[in-house]
Amino acid sequence: MNISFIGAGNLATHLATALMNAGHSIVSVYSRTMKSASELARKLGNVNVATDNLECLVPAEIYIISVKDDAVETIVERWPSKCRNGIVVHTAGTLPMTLIATTSEQIGVLYPLQTFSKNKPVCFKEIPCFIESNNEATLKVLQALASSISQMVIELSSEERKHLHVAAVFACNFVNHMVALGYELMERHGIPPSTLLPLIDETVTKLSTMHPHDCQTGPARRGDKQVIDAHLEELKGDEELRILYEEISKSIIRRFQQTT
Amino acid sequence: MNISFIGAGNLATHLATALMNAGHSIVSVYSRTMKSASELARKLGNVNVATDNLECLVPAEIYIISVKDDAVETIVERWPSKCRNGIVVHTAGTLPMTLIATTSEQIGVLYPLQTFSKNKPVCFKEIPCFIESNNEATLKVLQALASSISQMVIELSSEERKHLHVAAVFACNFVNHMVALGYELMERHGIPPSTLLPLIDETVTKLSTMHPHDCQTGPARRGDKQVIDAHLEELKGDEELRILYEEISKSIIRRFQQTT
Repeated sequence: MNISFIGAGNLATHLATALMNAGHSIVSVYSRTMKSASELARKLGNVNVATDNLECLVPAEIYIISVKDDAVETIVERWPSKCRNGIVVHTAGTLPMTLIATTSEQIGVLYPLQTFSKNKPVCFKEIPCFIESNNEATLKVLQALASSISQMVIELSSEERKHLHVAAVFACNFVNHMVALGYELMERHGIPPSTLLPLIDETVTKLSTMHPHDCQTGPARRGDKQVIDAHLEELKGDEELRILYEEISKSIIRRFQQTT
Repeated sequence: MNISFIGAGNLATHLATALMNAGHSIVSVYSRTMKSASELARKLGNVNVATDNLECLVPAEIYIISVKDDAVETIVERWPSKCRNGIVVHTAGTLPMTLIATTSEQIGVLYPLQTFSKNKPVCFKEIPCFIESNNEATLKVLQALASSISQMVIELSSEERKHLHVAAVFACNFVNHMVALGYELMERHGIPPSTLLPLIDETVTKLSTMHPHDCQTGPARRGDKQVIDAHLEELKGDEELRILYEEISKSIIRRFQQTT
């Protein structure tokens, strides 16, 4: 299919690359800055138009709006009338589909659940893609489009997608931050942080066969007040870490009081 | 070497198994209950004594105390006089070595940094082992013992080990809890929680080549107040999750304000 991209950030770059590799044509790339638009167009190789002017978008069968959440509204307000005949989708976890209702009669959402970093390739095949549309015909097109790049395509309403996004913040962004805090503590005391890696690997390897509830270990899981108090005492000089340690431990303790 | 084990929990079981597979002899196993002592002795195969009476421990070159933190003191108080000639070590992250000072003149610590679940085998070779002793000769013995089961043996003081343990709680126990909370949210809204797994895998795969600071993604990383507020609004009915979401987001935001 012919696709025009609105946005050239991490997600737009990975998604456009996967779609092109699956045989689709990216006919134009818009970005707020000419620099990013050109950079993505160059990466993709055979894009005809890179632009920082929405009016220069090349009409296409599908328009993919993949910009920061708070920039979507501005894009919608300035949507070019020549682009109202195609399917318009956004890729945001938390925004409702209806936010782009005025751009076209065929709208939808294509939300790939993954964490994208620049220059770190990902295997799109294994990324769950969540889709939504305001009509059956468009949903079928999005189903086909998503299936061309991913093995796991799931229909999900805007409301459900919002729940999913919150869950993903815990399971990805907050997981990474817990590791970052562990590293910080190691670095602060001159212990090589990479010695934590086998532990982190095993923590996550378990999850492929076990429910996280059954994997929980540590002082809070055991209700070991002596160790928890010793750790809180040690973190006394760092109010932020002390509060996090205490609140997360309380949350773990509560769960195992309820079930054992 | 000849080793007597005090304790038969998850860590004791995995450690005793690894030591036996490395060619050492486990000559006796003590546990608070006869049931656990026998169970571990049976798993190991050729142990002569399983007991719930400390006085029945078989004298050995090394005694490994691997029980819950708050049970170590009781073991020390009742330590049999016939066992005062060997090396006595404990395996706890947070307890100082000196806690077992009265058991023998040669004391130490052998702390394997890993999360152990029952019936889930681990590869000990890749587990960092942190050792400490009150004298050089004993330290050498512990170095040899630990090296027989692990490729990464590191000397660490009691004070440093305490820091390490707090870091490990963040990087393992709290990581697992963040995933557990993500699963809870998915289950609560009827979305298959296993669709989070590719995301979690990628989050951790990145850590093998990138510093966690450089891997951070998500609304708090971007300072995206609109999404954070929408998520807090959604969590309004669950005060515990709302507080955790807010505190962890603040902690992420603070780090990226400082550095960018």
